Amino acid sequence: MPEAPTVRDFTITPAPGGVTAPQGFRSAAVHCGIKAAAGTLDLAIIAADAAVPAAGLFTTNLAQAAPVLVSKRHLSQTGGMARAIVVNSGCANACTGDQGLSDAARMAADLASALSCRPEHVLVASTGVIGVNLKMNKVSPGISGAAAALARGKGSETARAIMTTDPFAKEHAVTVHTARGPFTVGGTAKGSGMIEPNMATMLAFLTTDARVPPALLHRALKESARDTFNAITVDGECSTNDSLFAMASGASGVAIDEDAYPAFVEALLVVSKELALGIVRGGEGATKLVAVHVTDAATSDDARRVARTIANSPLVKTAIHGADPNWGRIVAAAGRSGVQFDVQRTTVRVGDVLLFEHGLPHDDAAPLAEEHLKGTDVRIDVSLGTGGRHEATIWTCDLSAEYVRINGAYRT
Amino acid sequence: MPEAPTVRDFTITPAPGGVTAPQGFRSAAVHCGIKAAAGTLDLAIIAADAAVPAAGLFTTNLAQAAPVLVSKRHLSQTGGMARAIVVNSGCANACTGDQGLSDAARMAADLASALSCRPEHVLVASTGVIGVNLKMNKVSPGISGAAAALARGKGSETARAIMTTDPFAKEHAVTVHTARGPFTVGGTAKGSGMIEPNMATMLAFLTTDARVPPALLHRALKESARDTFNAITVDGECSTNDSLFAMASGASGVAIDEDAYPAFVEALLVVSKELALGIVRGGEGATKLVAVHVTDAATSDDARRVARTIANSPLVKTAIHGADPNWGRIVAAAGRSGVQFDVQRTTVRVGDVLLFEHGLPHDDAAPLAEEHLKGTDVRIDVSLGTGGRHEATIWTCDLSAEYVRINGAYRT
Repeated sequence: MPEAPTVRDFTITPAPGGVTAPQGFRSAAVHCGIKAAAGTLDLAIIAADAAVPAAGLFTTNLAQAAPVLVSKRHLSQTGGMARAIVVNSGCANACTGDQGLSDAARMAADLASALSCRPEHVLVASTGVIGVNLKMNKVSPGISGAAAALARGKGSETARAIMTTDPFAKEHAVTVHTARGPFTVGGTAKGSGMIEPNMATMLAFLTTDARVPPALLHRALKESARDTFNAITVDGECSTNDSLFAMASGASGVAIDEDAYPAFVEALLVVSKELALGIVRGGEGATKLVAVHVTDAATSDDARRVARTIANSPLVKTAIHGADPNWGRIVAAAGRSGVQFDVQRTTVRVGDVLLFEHGLPHDDAAPLAEEHLKGTDVRIDVSLGTGGRHEATIWTCDLSAEYVRINGAYRT
Repeated sequence: MPEAPTVRDFTITPAPGGVTAPQGFRSAAVHCGIKAAAGTLDLAIIAADAAVPAAGLFTTNLAQAAPVLVSKRHLSQTGGMARAIVVNSGCANACTGDQGLSDAARMAADLASALSCRPEHVLVASTGVIGVNLKMNKVSPGISGAAAALARGKGSETARAIMTTDPFAKEHAVTVHTARGPFTVGGTAKGSGMIEPNMATMLAFLTTDARVPPALLHRALKESARDTFNAITVDGECSTNDSLFAMASGASGVAIDEDAYPAFVEALLVVSKELALGIVRGGEGATKLVAVHVTDAATSDDARRVARTIANSPLVKTAIHGADPNWGRIVAAAGRSGVQFDVQRTTVRVGDVLLFEHGLPHDDAAPLAEEHLKGTDVRIDVSLGTGGRHEATIWTCDLSAEYVRINGAYRT
């Protein structure tokens, strides 16, 4: 048997569509009545043509919502296979006790019945208000209706159906061109508060028509999430419902083995980064996307921890909102991160503008930095000067009065 | 020699005044020109009649301001003795390099010269913008002028002089009546952003006319700070300048030994708690004081960590601001704190209203909880139900659009 051709050389190009861009997937979205406003999409299905390899990453919060518990159980029962994902917005089905678990299982059973598959081949995700039970008399008919409407080319409806306070829908797809032929990776995601590293109230669904065994799919998902979905923060919160799913239909015929693995991970990274940055850009009240880049740390963990502390600092985030090049707050946040470094060797740049080094400010440069901060894409670079060469980037958004307005009146 | 009478029985009554309520202390406050607005007090002195036992606790931030470094050095050189404290607002003298260190030392030397004492018997504190050098041509004459104006009964001017964005001045004093006679503890403090456990941009000065050896004073200060100044948070930030000083003149003649220690600590606790809660109540943009009380934890550290995570959660703080009894956000914050517990055994109360138990909400009680949240004093009780009996309280404030406004435009 001839070996599969090497795919170390590959190119990645954007592809139209989102979760249904890869072959072998259909989707549908309906308004079933979970959200009050008539016509607002609140339930979606993403389905493969048969049970295919699937992987999931979930919130690290101790308080895990019913759909998270059910989806974990299903992935474990099937050894990483799934036919479809059913997702609703408007109700998180979290902190809903036994009734909630039963409702989440019922969502899977309803869809399994419509697709004639096993219930454990259905994954479930929910987002919305915590502590409220699903109106199953709306949800069940919604699932039947959506299942009957499954089609390709409905990715953007699906992207809209999973939104809560998101200001815009997020979807992306790329095609990878390899010696074995092309394959496609697509996805959609929703934010937009409770976003922090380690899966926040984020739902994201990735699809590919590459042929990937479950274990390799899980490994690739974990690797690509680390520097994308797990490297963003809106407000340092971590929700009860965060879920990231990937399904691989194999419909392209392109097999992913160790040789093709880098190409596959790269495609996952490109799509995941686009979706993750979309979540931050659409963060509640956000007006700017902020990349906090920490270099010259003793370890990767140190770099990540400093970047995360800066990215979650309310004082840094409000200063950025006000276009104030307040490097002092950046230094102070780094200093309280718990990571050891010497402030005298630390440098802080906003955009390309050096604002702090040798323990002293360059205040003459402040007007230049202020110009940079007035844009919508902000970059903060902090070198810890430890002699180590580790680095990390965390993406966040600014903190505006609009965030407070949204979250002070979310339920009322 | 007869033993000192036991002071296990004591009563504590409020006393008028603040830092100069105890005998043996004078203070003065002036406008020297650090702050632009004419007449705004920006420099103060608190002085004993001679060098007396003194203790200090400082920010745990790696980036420590020049006055912090100088005060630590002085306390170490003198073994815990001080004659006076000089403090300015409007400029933090932080991240100011060698010039900053020299300026902080100069402030001590200027005051020492005016009081004819050793420079190392002067403690220095600063608060305000980071990264800007002190205008020493204003500060030095300010110190001379203030030193010449030292008097009793000027505690409230001192309390005003240390304010930055604080909406009101904070001072408090109590007299402790014991079998050995009465002694008094007084103090003043300023907030009001960058407030979190472990000394945030908080300055606080405590005085007493009890006679307390330096080591015992330090121990009592540490013990009382743990449940007061170190148990508050406004925004989870920790500044470069936090300092808490205590000075004991001994002028009352009442000696504090192990027997009298509980009475002394209790008085420190009463004054410190009043000042600490004042800092939270006056937190930037705050409209409510929130007590987060966590019980039935496996360890004290666990209780504190859960309480702190809830108290720093932007989603909890914005919900409280909007009087939304959103217990789901409280459960979610506890769940991401890193502490192990069983959500099924957790109960959440807002005010006295039970909102969550056995993994389920009591939404019928939400209107009652909403009434409680409309007040200015909010209480959140979380029982972790671990079987452990440890507890902790952290005080915080709500998060309002005003916080964003203040911090987005602090320097401009």
